[in-house]
Amino acid sequence: MKYTMRLAAGLLFAATLTAQVTSERLLNAAQEPGNWLTYSGTYQSQRYSPLDQITRENASKLKLSWVFQASSLQKFEATPLVVDGVMYLTQAPNDVVALDAKTGRKFWTYNHQLPETINVCCGAVNRGLAILGDQLFMGTVDGYLLALDATTGAVNWKTKVVEYKNGYSLTVAPLIVKGKVIVGTAGGEYGIRGFLDAYDAQTGEQAWRFYTIPGPGEPGHETWEGDSWMTGGGSAWVTGSYDPELNLVYWGIGNPAPDWNGDVRMGDNLYTDSAVALDADTGKLKWHFQFTPHDEWDWDSVQVPVLVDREFQGRMRKVILWGNRNGHFYVLDRATGEYLLGKAFVHQTWNDGLDEKGRPKTRQAAAPSIEGTKVYPGVQGGTNWYSPSYSPQTGLFYLSVWEYASTYHKNDPIYAEGHRFLGSLPRRVEGDPGYGAIRALDPETGEMEWEFRMVEVTNSGLLSTSTGVLFSGSNEGHFLALDARNGQEIWRTNLGGRAYASPITYTVDGEQQISIAAGNALFTFVLGE
Amino acid sequence: MKYTMRLAAGLLFAATLTAQVTSERLLNAAQEPGNWLTYSGTYQSQRYSPLDQITRENASKLKLSWVFQASSLQKFEATPLVVDGVMYLTQAPNDVVALDAKTGRKFWTYNHQLPETINVCCGAVNRGLAILGDQLFMGTVDGYLLALDATTGAVNWKTKVVEYKNGYSLTVAPLIVKGKVIVGTAGGEYGIRGFLDAYDAQTGEQAWRFYTIPGPGEPGHETWEGDSWMTGGGSAWVTGSYDPELNLVYWGIGNPAPDWNGDVRMGDNLYTDSAVALDADTGKLKWHFQFTPHDEWDWDSVQVPVLVDREFQGRMRKVILWGNRNGHFYVLDRATGEYLLGKAFVHQTWNDGLDEKGRPKTRQAAAPSIEGTKVYPGVQGGTNWYSPSYSPQTGLFYLSVWEYASTYHKNDPIYAEGHRFLGSLPRRVEGDPGYGAIRALDPETGEMEWEFRMVEVTNSGLLSTSTGVLFSGSNEGHFLALDARNGQEIWRTNLGGRAYASPITYTVDGEQQISIAAGNALFTFVLGE
Repeated sequence: MKYTMRLAAGLLFAATLTAQVTSERLLNAAQEPGNWLTYSGTYQSQRYSPLDQITRENASKLKLSWVFQASSLQKFEATPLVVDGVMYLTQAPNDVVALDAKTGRKFWTYNHQLPETINVCCGAVNRGLAILGDQLFMGTVDGYLLALDATTGAVNWKTKVVEYKNGYSLTVAPLIVKGKVIVGTAGGEYGIRGFLDAYDAQTGEQAWRFYTIPGPGEPGHETWEGDSWMTGGGSAWVTGSYDPELNLVYWGIGNPAPDWNGDVRMGDNLYTDSAVALDADTGKLKWHFQFTPHDEWDWDSVQVPVLVDREFQGRMRKVILWGNRNGHFYVLDRATGEYLLGKAFVHQTWNDGLDEKGRPKTRQAAAPSIEGTKVYPGVQGGTNWYSPSYSPQTGLFYLSVWEYASTYHKNDPIYAEGHRFLGSLPRRVEGDPGYGAIRALDPETGEMEWEFRMVEVTNSGLLSTSTGVLFSGSNEGHFLALDARNGQEIWRTNLGGRAYASPITYTVDGEQQISIAAGNALFTFVLGE
Repeated sequence: MKYTMRLAAGLLFAATLTAQVTSERLLNAAQEPGNWLTYSGTYQSQRYSPLDQITRENASKLKLSWVFQASSLQKFEATPLVVDGVMYLTQAPNDVVALDAKTGRKFWTYNHQLPETINVCCGAVNRGLAILGDQLFMGTVDGYLLALDATTGAVNWKTKVVEYKNGYSLTVAPLIVKGKVIVGTAGGEYGIRGFLDAYDAQTGEQAWRFYTIPGPGEPGHETWEGDSWMTGGGSAWVTGSYDPELNLVYWGIGNPAPDWNGDVRMGDNLYTDSAVALDADTGKLKWHFQFTPHDEWDWDSVQVPVLVDREFQGRMRKVILWGNRNGHFYVLDRATGEYLLGKAFVHQTWNDGLDEKGRPKTRQAAAPSIEGTKVYPGVQGGTNWYSPSYSPQTGLFYLSVWEYASTYHKNDPIYAEGHRFLGSLPRRVEGDPGYGAIRALDPETGEMEWEFRMVEVTNSGLLSTSTGVLFSGSNEGHFLALDARNGQEIWRTNLGGRAYASPITYTVDGEQQISIAAGNALFTFVLGE
């Protein structure tokens, strides 16, 4: 393969970087698998690619094409976008980079400077961009939503969404729906009151806000004792999904605050740990489903909602598949929120299963205590925010799981604006390391079809392809290709760093590429000759 | 290719990490090309490998085997060592890491903490390790020489070599000769008095010191006016070579201080900008050759001395090949220091050639001036410290060159211990970017056989192999395989970061591997299936 230097790239630059990503293209993203137009690939968020050049037979021939090394040692949690040969990605915390998706050559970098001191729960990270027209959209750790010119990286508009000094921040990759830019706030560990916001993509003006915690007079407000709703958490830091037919936006809502001590917030604490379905035009709540009422273990439900149209219990249904941090796999009807199935996918000791409505039968004895209570799963959950994948080809749902326990301690949290609001920290259980795995579940039953064991959970998301390959990264630094039918390993290579984001696949000049971030770099592979 | 997890590695660990690198093995390093036992591969420092699996025909099939990502954003200037399947390398500034050379799996890390504030000219970097017996040796930026247990990373001994507060530091990879650990000091920009030191590898006790600037009563002292010798520079920050038959250690000596203003140090300023040949047992000077007397352009002569036994002008000779920062290529007799050949390899305007003794005919008009003097080559030189390579197979000498100019400014430097001691800073010439290249020279004539052009100079060293492949990295982030006969590109891949060190090659389980550091990571490649 002959490499062509693109140095005298003035003209080529202009040509390559003109990307008109219309709303129509976003709706039909599945029809152009050569691009990766949204955080989860399409509005259905299946992270499934119809591309078929890389197969079970030849995946072991993958060879490195190019590397992008970030000038940051922060976690690389961003999923890139690819539009017509150009890759857009964020470099932690909030730089934006445009690259030639074929060679890795940089077109431009936008540098966003953060304040010197800033409170963040889990690293000054960013999970990616959204694109519409010729604009890229990014939320920043210091609370802004930015629109950048995709051809130059210049800032078109900048809207202040949250006050970072009060513990709020934006780390989520925005979701574009019908000309609006939807973002949620992070900061669940800081006693915030969470929300989802929509902004006009052209002007940056706010279109609607949905508070994840209902205010006085609103339904659900009664699930918060006293003033606890004001500092109740309910962040929304992972990107949601969209069903154009139903015109509903689906989003996963984070844990209630404070963590690990529910005494100061008696009640179910809606809509924390819930899936919410919002009218895309108004942000009004259509339905909700709460996975874990009155959570005391940090069962953030920020997972990506995976939208699937398939036969379920004998008839075609529009469902959501959800591998929850609380260790249960759920199937919901996405028109109504009806609970269809729930099934534990990891060992757990905090409940006696789910009732007929899907509500967990919580064990009193599993509550955090001053002396510490050992509970399965551990504090990072049975899974976490890592993107799952659904393959229409195998009909299986793939997720990253962690079989382990934590000892949950409890104390009296004190709230102070902009500071951590926690009921003590859980600890690992000595001598009981557990293990991680990638598991394939049958959505019909929730039963495990196979697992691929690892030392630890992988923080990486998953990607399935029409050729029956499942890609993921590992905490040991490996990039893995598995047989999606049975979990057999096809290929691995050691990238030297943890994968905190999801692999994507795309084409340039007709050639299938596969990219994954690991450590502080993004690696792109192509098939060897 | 099936990958075998090496997790239950207790036993394997002990077995793999027992490396008895005797003095005998170092002497005969060329006989075991599957290992890389010294900074430059062998005592001759040719960076030539007899390994023959990777050829001109198949180099385009190289695929990524594993990556090591450094937890540092400092420049990755270290060449790794490989001993019997274990790779040892330094992570900037002074961590030492032992890896499985086949998989990249980490065995151990030694962390060296530097003082919070430390003055260094060009980054808190390190160029690598030396090994003898079961001990690794490393110089530190804060001035220590350490001996580590190669099986565990534990510190066996620690000797203070220099006082970092006075501007000295150790960045060089040590050279082991006959049970002694030889290091030179960096700090030429801080008005130090440079030296080379030898320490007993077992005890860490000093064996000898050679001051690169002669003191009162010593020959050469008269080449420094007044007290200028006391702050005259003469650093030694790149590893030398060794001829066991002659029992001579060869080392390149850095620039005089202050840079860019010689008025305060009238005279030739021996042994700055010189090659020195020292008795390995005593450190006594056997001969010297000064490339640039009374240097005012920063013509550091720290280049790796490349020792070659070949026919030269009709008879077999033991020569040194030297591509000097001042822009000339030299051939010296290494028994006597006799000047045999000198030839410009880049455009230059600071001299009218060399006289019959090899002394440059310096142009007065080229001296730095208050208004600025434009001179070719630019301040980084025609080449710099980047390791060259000599291939006995092609008979060619390969080096990284830079065709460009700087404007050299002059002012009155003020000396203060531990602070920079400079005569103003040179500047790039607007509108005259120049270009970099890898060039192949015929040692018989100094004539260029071919060049491979690049945008900028490469900071990477070179590696040639018996199959006629020449490897290097580039400042644009590419790892390159060239045809050593004619400079034609065989293969490149974009590693996303500048290469500041040299590629090496080795074998594990009989399979040839090739490693290069670029950006903040080290990449290892093998042939695809």
